[in-house]
Amino acid sequence: MASGRPMPRYSRVVCLNGSTRMPTLYDYLDSGNGYKIRLLLAQLKQPYRWIELDITRGATRTPQFLAKNLNGRIPTLELDDGTCLAESDAIMWYLAEGSPFVPADRLGRAQALQWMFFEQYSHEPYVATPRYIIRHLPPDSPRQAELPDRRARGRDALAVMDGHLRNRTYFVGERYSIADIALYAYTHVAPEAGFDLSPYPHVLSWMGRVASEPGHMLITDRPAS
Amino acid sequence: MASGRPMPRYSRVVCLNGSTRMPTLYDYLDSGNGYKIRLLLAQLKQPYRWIELDITRGATRTPQFLAKNLNGRIPTLELDDGTCLAESDAIMWYLAEGSPFVPADRLGRAQALQWMFFEQYSHEPYVATPRYIIRHLPPDSPRQAELPDRRARGRDALAVMDGHLRNRTYFVGERYSIADIALYAYTHVAPEAGFDLSPYPHVLSWMGRVASEPGHMLITDRPAS
Repeated sequence: MASGRPMPRYSRVVCLNGSTRMPTLYDYLDSGNGYKIRLLLAQLKQPYRWIELDITRGATRTPQFLAKNLNGRIPTLELDDGTCLAESDAIMWYLAEGSPFVPADRLGRAQALQWMFFEQYSHEPYVATPRYIIRHLPPDSPRQAELPDRRARGRDALAVMDGHLRNRTYFVGERYSIADIALYAYTHVAPEAGFDLSPYPHVLSWMGRVASEPGHMLITDRPAS
Repeated sequence: MASGRPMPRYSRVVCLNGSTRMPTLYDYLDSGNGYKIRLLLAQLKQPYRWIELDITRGATRTPQFLAKNLNGRIPTLELDDGTCLAESDAIMWYLAEGSPFVPADRLGRAQALQWMFFEQYSHEPYVATPRYIIRHLPPDSPRQAELPDRRARGRDALAVMDGHLRNRTYFVGERYSIADIALYAYTHVAPEAGFDLSPYPHVLSWMGRVASEPGHMLITDRPAS
């Protein structure tokens, strides 16, 4: 993937309104983790600057970006004062705390976090990573060999979700929350990772409900200026 | 590991006081994820029932336990009303919300969650899993082949922690919190997973501070009756 051209550090900058008092989201359009933040910000109607970094060309491993996030990953949210926040689900918590997108009761908040940690530990490495390998690595990458094992564990995660949703409309408290956004992000594009979702009918109907929520946007929707 | 004996479902039950109004922690002594909850409960001085399940013999995959946690994992916390909560870091949030172990400000809470998600995504699979392979799988397990790659990514995680702690005493807000407990749990036993911690001096001095906190206990300390 190396080339003689200088690496573009920022491939696109969009300012979503004219104010200077708004956060900046460092992101990559095809990232489901980044999409979580874009979707939540759209539904919160919160303006932000959007800066796309080409993660396939090392743009998050520059000294400039590592000063913002030592772990070198998008999404990273930069606040007005320069403070940077990493980890998609922590960023969602920051943005949504006190809003209807975070449960109002103590148990509900912990249950939302339970599903968000489930997503990062038991779902994302097995549903999102195969999609990345297929879409962004060359067909002869040795990482193609990881696909069968990862997909098997991805099916385990989808089965857990399907069982939980059997008699529920949303993951926590019968109400749409950041737990749904966290799990929707890579589940709805799981077919791009080679998953057949037809064995998970409760997941499919839940995805339909999530996509019908006011302010929904697609992972392919670039933040518009 | 199979044997002709019937599988013990519960290997040990300890009631930490005589009340029936207290949560039950399903756990496994050698689990760092379980240790997070034991350490926090000790520091919160909260009584609880402790039930140890032998995860090496499938005790979390029984229909009885899967009814408590569809994902079949410890730690799982069962509340008085039978509600069960999974995922160690979500359980800690539930137990500690409103206490000094969770930051009092919105940004601090999000930063604590940032490090807890970092722990589950970028640290636990690469620091905890090698320890599990070494301690609980047979020496000829094919999973031994995973060790070099996992340890390399574990060293990346330790380096991120060391960089963050260079000029800080704790992970968030210069105060001991559940973010420290989350990262301490498997970091302090990383040598058991084959890690040399000497290249991470800031991690080492932070571990000393964590171990000096009031009410600290060891991962090998069985909850006493």
